[in-house]
Amino acid sequence: MRTRAAVAFQAGKPLEVTEVELDGPREGEVLVEIKATGICHTDEFTLSGADPEGLFPAILGHEGAGVVVDVGPGVKSVKKGDHVIPLYTAECRECEYCLNPKTNLCQAIRTTQGQGLMPDGTSRFRTLDGDPILHYMGCSTFSNYTVLPEIAVAKIREDAPFDKVCYIGCGVTTGVGAVVNTAKAEPGCRAVIFGLGGIGLNVIQGLRMIGADQIVGVDLNPAKKAMAERFGMTDFVNPSEVEGDLVPYLVDLTKGGADYSFDCTGNVNVMRTALECAHKGWGESIIIGVAPAGAEISTRPFQLVTGRTWKGTAFGGARGRTDVPKIVEWYMQGKIEIDPLITHTLSLDEINKGFDLMHSGESIRSVVLY
Amino acid sequence: MRTRAAVAFQAGKPLEVTEVELDGPREGEVLVEIKATGICHTDEFTLSGADPEGLFPAILGHEGAGVVVDVGPGVKSVKKGDHVIPLYTAECRECEYCLNPKTNLCQAIRTTQGQGLMPDGTSRFRTLDGDPILHYMGCSTFSNYTVLPEIAVAKIREDAPFDKVCYIGCGVTTGVGAVVNTAKAEPGCRAVIFGLGGIGLNVIQGLRMIGADQIVGVDLNPAKKAMAERFGMTDFVNPSEVEGDLVPYLVDLTKGGADYSFDCTGNVNVMRTALECAHKGWGESIIIGVAPAGAEISTRPFQLVTGRTWKGTAFGGARGRTDVPKIVEWYMQGKIEIDPLITHTLSLDEINKGFDLMHSGESIRSVVLY
Ligand SMILES: NC(=O)c1ccc[n+]([C@@H]2O[C@H](COP(=O)([O-])OP(=O)(O)OC[C@H]3O[C@@H](n4cnc5c(N)ncnc54)[C@H](O)[C@@H]3O)[C@@H](O)[C@H]2O)c1
Ligand SMILES: NC(=O)c1ccc[n+]([C@@H]2O[C@H](COP(=O)([O-])OP(=O)(O)OC[C@H]3O[C@@H](n4cnc5c(N)ncnc54)[C@H](O)[C@@H]3O)[C@@H](O)[C@H]2O)c1
Ligand SMILES: [Zn+2]
Ligand SMILES: [Zn+2]
Ligand SMILES: [Zn+2]
Ligand SMILES: [Zn+2]
Repeated sequence: MRTRAAVAFQAGKPLEVTEVELDGPREGEVLVEIKATGICHTDEFTLSGADPEGLFPAILGHEGAGVVVDVGPGVKSVKKGDHVIPLYTAECRECEYCLNPKTNLCQAIRTTQGQGLMPDGTSRFRTLDGDPILHYMGCSTFSNYTVLPEIAVAKIREDAPFDKVCYIGCGVTTGVGAVVNTAKAEPGCRAVIFGLGGIGLNVIQGLRMIGADQIVGVDLNPAKKAMAERFGMTDFVNPSEVEGDLVPYLVDLTKGGADYSFDCTGNVNVMRTALECAHKGWGESIIIGVAPAGAEISTRPFQLVTGRTWKGTAFGGARGRTDVPKIVEWYMQGKIEIDPLITHTLSLDEINKGFDLMHSGESIRSVVLY
Repeated sequence: MRTRAAVAFQAGKPLEVTEVELDGPREGEVLVEIKATGICHTDEFTLSGADPEGLFPAILGHEGAGVVVDVGPGVKSVKKGDHVIPLYTAECRECEYCLNPKTNLCQAIRTTQGQGLMPDGTSRFRTLDGDPILHYMGCSTFSNYTVLPEIAVAKIREDAPFDKVCYIGCGVTTGVGAVVNTAKAEPGCRAVIFGLGGIGLNVIQGLRMIGADQIVGVDLNPAKKAMAERFGMTDFVNPSEVEGDLVPYLVDLTKGGADYSFDCTGNVNVMRTALECAHKGWGESIIIGVAPAGAEISTRPFQLVTGRTWKGTAFGGARGRTDVPKIVEWYMQGKIEIDPLITHTLSLDEINKGFDLMHSGESIRSVVLY
């Protein structure tokens, strides 16, 4: 079939919106009509050429929601008409990782996914001239129709609005999941969040949901304060306004240190501050931000020997097929908010504007509606 | 009263065995006759002058066992005649730390302890000329008699031999506790231990006790192999005999990475290797070794984002009054071994020889018998 898609032909160049050829779903695969897709920093990271593992030409996008319109042979867990969110972290429920309750990093299709291919080692996308186009993060939600492995779609309730819950495909789950799955933060805890972009705001609302007592937001940009407060932030700290070291300031503010701290900036110096402002004895610091290639974190080992723990999280520690439908529920029940985070909606033709809005810092999330 | 003690008058100088004056126990304190004491790397670290927080003159030693011979007013938890192990990490059961199940770092007497003083801010030790001598780590087991806060002694069974269980006062608990309390390692796990000195051997036997499947020991000194095997090591790796990088070698050997890795060297480069050989998704690396002042650990944050956890442990995460008696039980029941680790016994007059044996690497543990 033919479908409209925004194709990344080359690193550093805008996406080209064009028609492409899409093969139907094979064994264990499903064809999904994408209804809406967010534009995430990770798409931008790849498109810019900064990602050493980026491959081209490819159809980017990994934060979508849509409807199953066809299924390949052997597909059992979803059927035509089901509403789904594509998963860049699959959940096969059979691999060594899926069977270990400590991780969400299903490895079933990791290798081919990293190569921009479906599990059978081929691509479903071609240009109209027949040249291959690669998949991206196993999702390629910048195409109106896309093919996904059955194990890489989460079935969600049908009354959930695509233009909002698409954001659960990455940002919401990453932030809320970091609190719920990775930190397993408890009611009454004190937390510090570095970086109040889309990820940081979702961490904040995850903390509000589980009943945190103190939610300190740290950002160099004072314009981030209002929205963060709306999402549950109790204290705002602008590092450029703190005299002296930031760590003792934050330790003092949290009466001894954060029970949980979260880096949502991707800056390795911030990651160190986040660790060191965690409470002696039990504070955990969780890295969510993605650092530039080659950058390293460091600290004195004494920080860990005196009881701090350093962790990271990918996709918020969520097992997609199991946890994404739960997060959709939480949204529908009003336990978390998404609407104010979708600051811009665009047509597919306008998709490059979404990247511009991200660069200028104007948007929290831009969503493309098909 | 007068007691014989080995006094550290100055950094970098041998201890001087001499008589000193000791005041009796005050409110909440007990007088203990030390029957045996181990000589630990931490004593050596302080005596050498390398510890920036070392204070002199002081009576070192923190790995002892003995008998309560007098109690001050208000003491309720122990009485004359009780056999005890002094605790450099107290357990008051009342402070914010003791009441938080995630930590063992009781803060009740931390400040005065760090100043070489009893909780009331004074010292019980003096030279015969009346000059003050400081306490050390709240223990000062290099004195035949010493005064300790009630909350800093663990009562143990009376048939436990002092010359062996004194080692539970630091090394045994640090190693076994890192496995049991900090890692909470499960039966069937695979582990890698860096550094097969006294601490590493105790980590190994902790892993054997809890039923680990694979226990890989890493040491540059091949002479460490035999004893480590006796304690449960299943595989030995000498990094100088590995061609290429050590991390992929260890990941391969453990079929994907260690569920738990332990640094027992104090070398920050080893700490990095230990983290990076931990299993993607769930591997935990635990720092036990004490690094030189100012040294830093580092790694790429991706190591954490893909599911590894970096932790540290002090006193094996043990709550002394609660956990030390349990470890004494395990020794008496034969679940762990201590006897082969006590390679040398000395009189107090010979105590400096104990430091020489440590420097030469001849001893695992030297114990002074009073
Ligand atoms: N681990 C995962 O699974 C995962 C998933 C999605 C995104 N991410 C990463 O999360 C990070 C945050 O994403 P986002 O969409 O919220 O980005 P964003 O750019 O919208 O927000 C980043 C915020 O950090 C602030 N900031 C930058 N430097 C700072 C500093 N030194 N101190 C304090 N604040 C500072 C900025 O002002 C901004 O508000 C990115 O690195 C992204 O790649 C990770
Ligand atoms: N965290 C705590 O509560 C605590 C308590 C006691 C001791 N410690 C620390 O634990 C560490 C170990 O103590 P120990 O008594 O076993 O010391 P040790 O000197 O007896 O043993 C260290 C071992 O590490 C090996 N080693 C050194 N460099 C190595 C390298 N690069 N690669 C592989 N092996 C290497 C040595 O050959 C030796 O066998 C020390 O740093 C000590 O200060 C920590
Ligand atoms: Zn994303
Ligand atoms: Zn799986
Ligand atoms: Zn010690
Ligand atoms: Zn306490």
